[in-house]
Formats: sequence, C-alpha cells, structure tokens
Amino acid sequence: MKNIVDFNLLAKAVRGLSVPRPTSGTLSGHAAGEPFDKAVYSKLQEQYPGIVFRQYEYLNFLYRRHLNAVGVEAKNKLFDSPTVLFLLSRGKDATNRWSVSSPFEEKQNDTADILAVQDNFFNLIDVKTRNLDKKAQPPNIISSYKLAQLCATMLDNEDFNSFTIDYFEVDWRLAGNDLVCESAHHANLFRIDPSTLYINWAAAMQVQFHVDECDQSFAGQGCQWAKEYLRHFVKQAKERAQYMINQFVTPFLKYVD
Amino acid sequence: MKNIVDFNLLAKAVRGLSVPRPTSGTLSGHAAGEPFDKAVYSKLQEQYPGIVFRQYEYLNFLYRRHLNAVGVEAKNKLFDSPTVLFLLSRGKDATNRWSVSSPFEEKQNDTADILAVQDNFFNLIDVKTRNLDKKAQPPNIISSYKLAQLCATMLDNEDFNSFTIDYFEVDWRLAGNDLVCESAHHANLFRIDPSTLYINWAAAMQVQFHVDECDQSFAGQGCQWAKEYLRHFVKQAKERAQYMINQFVTPFLKYVD
Repeated sequence: MKNIVDFNLLAKAVRGLSVPRPTSGTLSGHAAGEPFDKAVYSKLQEQYPGIVFRQYEYLNFLYRRHLNAVGVEAKNKLFDSPTVLFLLSRGKDATNRWSVSSPFEEKQNDTADILAVQDNFFNLIDVKTRNLDKKAQPPNIISSYKLAQLCATMLDNEDFNSFTIDYFEVDWRLAGNDLVCESAHHANLFRIDPSTLYINWAAAMQVQFHVDECDQSFAGQGCQWAKEYLRHFVKQAKERAQYMINQFVTPFLKYVD
Repeated sequence: MKNIVDFNLLAKAVRGLSVPRPTSGTLSGHAAGEPFDKAVYSKLQEQYPGIVFRQYEYLNFLYRRHLNAVGVEAKNKLFDSPTVLFLLSRGKDATNRWSVSSPFEEKQNDTADILAVQDNFFNLIDVKTRNLDKKAQPPNIISSYKLAQLCATMLDNEDFNSFTIDYFEVDWRLAGNDLVCESAHHANLFRIDPSTLYINWAAAMQVQFHVDECDQSFAGQGCQWAKEYLRHFVKQAKERAQYMINQFVTPFLKYVD
C-alpha cells in the first residue's frame, strides 16, 4: 500500500522534543498532550511543505480554489473519491453555509487531526498522546459504526487506493516545567488484523487501542480488510445485542411480570 | 416520602452566591462548576450541622466508630439497609484494605456527592452545575443498570424507606472574574415518572436529564416506582438490542455473505 508520510522519519524528529507544560495545572488526558499534536503538525509541515493540512484547513483550501463550485452538490464533486468525501466533508447544512468570509473552523469530531495530500491520495493522520507516568485506558480511535460505513462505501465504489489512515502515538513524561517526548509509535489502520479490533459499545461504540500495542500483521488488500472488518463488526454487534438481553433484560424479568 | 434536606431553603441560600472563576482558563463542563459543588456542601453543613458528609467521609466516619468491625463482612453489617449498603459501600478489596491510617479518598464514580444522614435515613444528594450561557446536553445522572440493580435490591428486601436520592442544579453565569449562581433547581428521583427517563445507551448507559426540566408528578410509593422503573429499563434494553440489529447488523449483511 502506498503512502505519503514516512513515520519512522517523523518518529525520529519527534523523539526528544519538549513542549512547555500546559498552564491549566492538571496533566490529565487530552489537554496535557495537545501541544504535541501541534508539534507533530509543525514537523510534518517542515518535512512535507505545502501538502500538510488540518482537516478543516484542507476543506477551506479546496473550496477557496473552486469558488465556482456553489452549494453542497458542486462542492462534493470536487472529491474524486466517494470514500474520501465521506471521511472529510462536513454536513450538508454546514457545507451550504460555507463562504470565504465564514470558512470552517476546527471541529472536535473531525475524522483526522492532520492530512497529507499528494496526487489525489489522502493520508489521514490521528495523533494520540500518552503520559508514561499514568496507566491509561486505550484511547478512542474511531467510531466502529463510522468505520463500518467507511468499509461499505469502499466496497460499493471499489475505492481502495485513494486514502489511508495512520495513528501516531507520542509518549511523554513531565520533566521540570516541560513535557518531553521519550518515544513515538506508528500504526496503519489497514495493517491491523480487523478481527482483533476492540469495540467499546458503551463508550460511543469506539474502537479503542494503544498504538504501540497494535498488531500490524495484516497483509491483505483494502478490499479484504473492508470485508473482514464488516464481518467482525456484524458479529460484535450481534454479540452485544445478545449480551444486552442476557445482562439487562433476563435478570429483571421476574420483577416485571 | 420523608426527607432530611429542605431544598427550597437550600436554593434560597445558594441563589446569588458567587465563587471565583477557576484558574484553568476554560469554562467547559465539569471543572467550571466544581466550586459550586463545594459551596453547596458548605451551605448544607451550616444548615444541618453534624449530619452532612461527602460519601467517602461518611464511610470513614462509620468505620472509625466501629473499629471492632474487621473485614468486609463485619463492615457491611454496619448498614441496616441492604439498599443503602449497595449504594454507598466500596468494593470488597477496597473495604478490606481500609484502615484508620489509610482511609477512603473521594472517588469519581461514587453514587452521591453529598449525604445527609439522620435516624438511619440517608438523603443522597448529587449536585449538577450548568453554565447558563451555553446550550448543554443533559448531564449524566446515574447508570441505568445501577438503578435497575438498586430497584431489584429494594424489591428483594422490601427496603423502600431507608433512603432517597435528590438532584440539585446550580445555574451560573460568568460575571467579571466570578461565577454567579442565578437560579437553583431541585428534583427528587422518586417523584419522576420512571417511564419518562431517557437512557443514553452509547454514553455508558447513563440516565440523562436537566434537573430543571424534570417531571415531578409521580405520586406512587417506592415499591411502585421500583417496579415501573424495571419495566421501563427492560423495555428500553430490548428496544436498544433490536435497534442494534436493525442499525449495525442488517444493513451490512450483504457485504458479509
């Protein structure tokens, strides 16, 4: 599978990097690691000048270059790949409201933190940060349902070679008033055996894993990955529905008559 | 239904109260309203001296007064009500590890923020805070599953009069460098028609509502409430299981062969 970003090179550039400790005081979860997300973005912009964007920046860039594409239908046609369209575009109303003077801003549930775009190929990159001094639950990776819709779109359109999705983990530790990156890890979503993905149904159906603990052994094509993921998702959803009956219905039936 | 705390009196005492703006900078969610949780606790301690506790404080208080109750079984017997035991106690291991020199500390998933305890009756109180300048989703109230287990325990033990659960909402607005409480609302869980409770299955199965928008029309006894809640919970769980099949299984079967 082709790709744009060399993640070994990126890991080399990021290892040893330090950022100022956030002023908020706590070093919990999201807020603490955020400066590293920005730092990774800067490094990528240095390494791949002109082709690295935040997701919203890319949409603003694309729509500004095609001001003649008015309205959501015309704007959607600016994407060659229906799958990339599904992954990157905003909702219908938001897209209709877009204008040069009121462009998109960053949105928390955008699919990717960062995009690298070259020759109509999209490398979606999500940055995960991890405090090495805390034992943390695996982070949310992507909605398992969104991923199922993605796979269905790929299969419906035989659209397997227009994008890929990578996760990049920055492991840091507090050192004085700085957070220092001690190690960095990378995983490509489509190299993970889909049947090993853990879906946390009670946590917004999110796929969850630590990037550095990820299987990377899947050697099949995108088409196979999509089919195997859907098989896994359907099986998990069925099992969860049955679990709900066993756990939340059956034990309480005697009180309900 | 009897109760300890007069929530109209409490609302009067809290309305107009101001607390310093948190230093963290953002005014989002939990962190911003937290000083009001502490303020409500202080007011209750003034109004009901000697009988108001944080949940973990009550456990420490109880276990310190009964040092002869060694181990989890003996400690559990300090509770007359099996339902109150279910609601307030920590896990088996944590309870076995408890000692005067290593007492319990506050835990995020304790059932109640505050307890008022009188004549072996327990008033569990949860404080919810709301920024009036933001449109927010209804907050997490309690796990719908924990509530089902609670109702089953009540029915199994015919234990309906040893406790009640109240929610107290503090509505605030930023004014200069202070957060000012503009209004306060109260709802008793067992006055809400249980069949109206919204369960967000994807958000850790939490019951969610805004305290000030809550129905308070239920006039039945605890026994009726518990039965009607269980009927509602079982129905909702069945519907959710069926929804999962319709939404996450059926549409994808054609890809799975």
